[in-house]
Amino acid sequence: MFSSKAKARGKTIAFVPTMGFLHEGHLSLVEAARKKAEIVVVSIFVNPIQFGPNEDFNRYPKDLNHDKNLLSNYDIDVLFMPEARQMYPEGFKTSVEVADLSKKMCGRNRPEHFKGVVTVVAKLFNIVKPDFAFFGEKDHQQLLIIKKMAKDLSFDIKIFGLPIVREFDGLAMSSRNKYLNEKQRKSALVLYRALMLAKEEIDNGEKDIQKILLRMRSLIGTEPTIRLDYVVIADPDTLEEVKTLKGRLLIALAAQLGPARLIDNIHY
Amino acid sequence: MFSSKAKARGKTIAFVPTMGFLHEGHLSLVEAARKKAEIVVVSIFVNPIQFGPNEDFNRYPKDLNHDKNLLSNYDIDVLFMPEARQMYPEGFKTSVEVADLSKKMCGRNRPEHFKGVVTVVAKLFNIVKPDFAFFGEKDHQQLLIIKKMAKDLSFDIKIFGLPIVREFDGLAMSSRNKYLNEKQRKSALVLYRALMLAKEEIDNGEKDIQKILLRMRSLIGTEPTIRLDYVVIADPDTLEEVKTLKGRLLIALAAQLGPARLIDNIHY
Repeated sequence: MFSSKAKARGKTIAFVPTMGFLHEGHLSLVEAARKKAEIVVVSIFVNPIQFGPNEDFNRYPKDLNHDKNLLSNYDIDVLFMPEARQMYPEGFKTSVEVADLSKKMCGRNRPEHFKGVVTVVAKLFNIVKPDFAFFGEKDHQQLLIIKKMAKDLSFDIKIFGLPIVREFDGLAMSSRNKYLNEKQRKSALVLYRALMLAKEEIDNGEKDIQKILLRMRSLIGTEPTIRLDYVVIADPDTLEEVKTLKGRLLIALAAQLGPARLIDNIHY
Repeated sequence: MFSSKAKARGKTIAFVPTMGFLHEGHLSLVEAARKKAEIVVVSIFVNPIQFGPNEDFNRYPKDLNHDKNLLSNYDIDVLFMPEARQMYPEGFKTSVEVADLSKKMCGRNRPEHFKGVVTVVAKLFNIVKPDFAFFGEKDHQQLLIIKKMAKDLSFDIKIFGLPIVREFDGLAMSSRNKYLNEKQRKSALVLYRALMLAKEEIDNGEKDIQKILLRMRSLIGTEPTIRLDYVVIADPDTLEEVKTLKGRLLIALAAQLGPARLIDNIHY
């Protein structure tokens, strides 16, 4: 309703969908949104349908006062915080899905995850009616799939992916870092170091992808508490693993560390 | 683009999506749309993804001059006639689906049909940005599924279902009636007569649903060229077959008659 009126007055709307427990990564999106449009809408919604049955939906971190406090510096126009029962009333039956891309990388171990993401994003797009929407590059696969969905379904929305924001020591910012104890927090650093190692190897002229992946796995293996889910060197547009190191590359990984599933990537 | 500008000027848009080869059923939708909004958009698009592999996509009737001629009486603002390659460029991967409802009735023999319908309608909604959209009650299941999709995904669109328009002798108007030769055209009448028979039986106090269905099937059986797909007495909202004749009822059928798959229904 707010959005319909704003559009009828010819205003532009920039949208930052989040699951809350905001960090500087989210804030970089809000900042970009503020620069882009007359009206900025931020949503906080921990979307149940994107979590698998044994995942962390019930313990996903929340701190609404902290979030509101952070957002108070950014002059946003609407903070949209729907309840799950508003978003998915009884008898909800519709899903939106992007084939192929949703089954690679994170989709292999989280088969319904991206269907849940894309469904909620399509719904949020219809509610918020943004001209611009902002997502983080940390979730590169998510960003790619959302862009694909928006293009395929002709959403009249320009989608921006913003660079990963990292802690001082390189760890990609994530609400799930909250799960890590001090020891795990230190171990987690090896993930970014493995990405940097791959970059270094390619910089140094290594052509053998399997060797690079093996060295990354060995490095990560030095932290025995980490259970690596995948590490890939892939085409950033198709997510297909590449056979030769040319053109633009996505080097991406996912790993479980205690209660936290962490993902990270770099572009080459 | 047209729609964005119209919305920014505060105009309302009414939308009538069709597959062309228009008849009075379609025109009743256009007329209702014209009364409802400042801008009327009609689309003609024979949507390939809602046809099964052995269905009539390639021979679906077309007569654009006839369609334009008919529409010229209704002062419509935009006639949108996209090409399939514009709607589904190479690499199109997204689908929208409504579970359960899509698998009943027509969905039993056309398993991917409603996924194709709902995907194109969601896309057309995003392109046209209507405030109001109009569909025919002949395709009751389609109407129900589109309403469900629009509600679940929070499309800000009011959807209207308009009554079936019939030929002088009762046959429900359909672009596919074009397929019928003179003899088949006469045989087809038995479908509406079977629906009327059911109504009569209920009016006369018959309580036994199986008896009513049997009599309908027997009547249709008097036309041996008709291959009945289904006949149901169902809840019009859930499409579940009812066990007792109370409340609102949908009496619906589908049948193959030569090259034509025909559907019809009445509400009780």
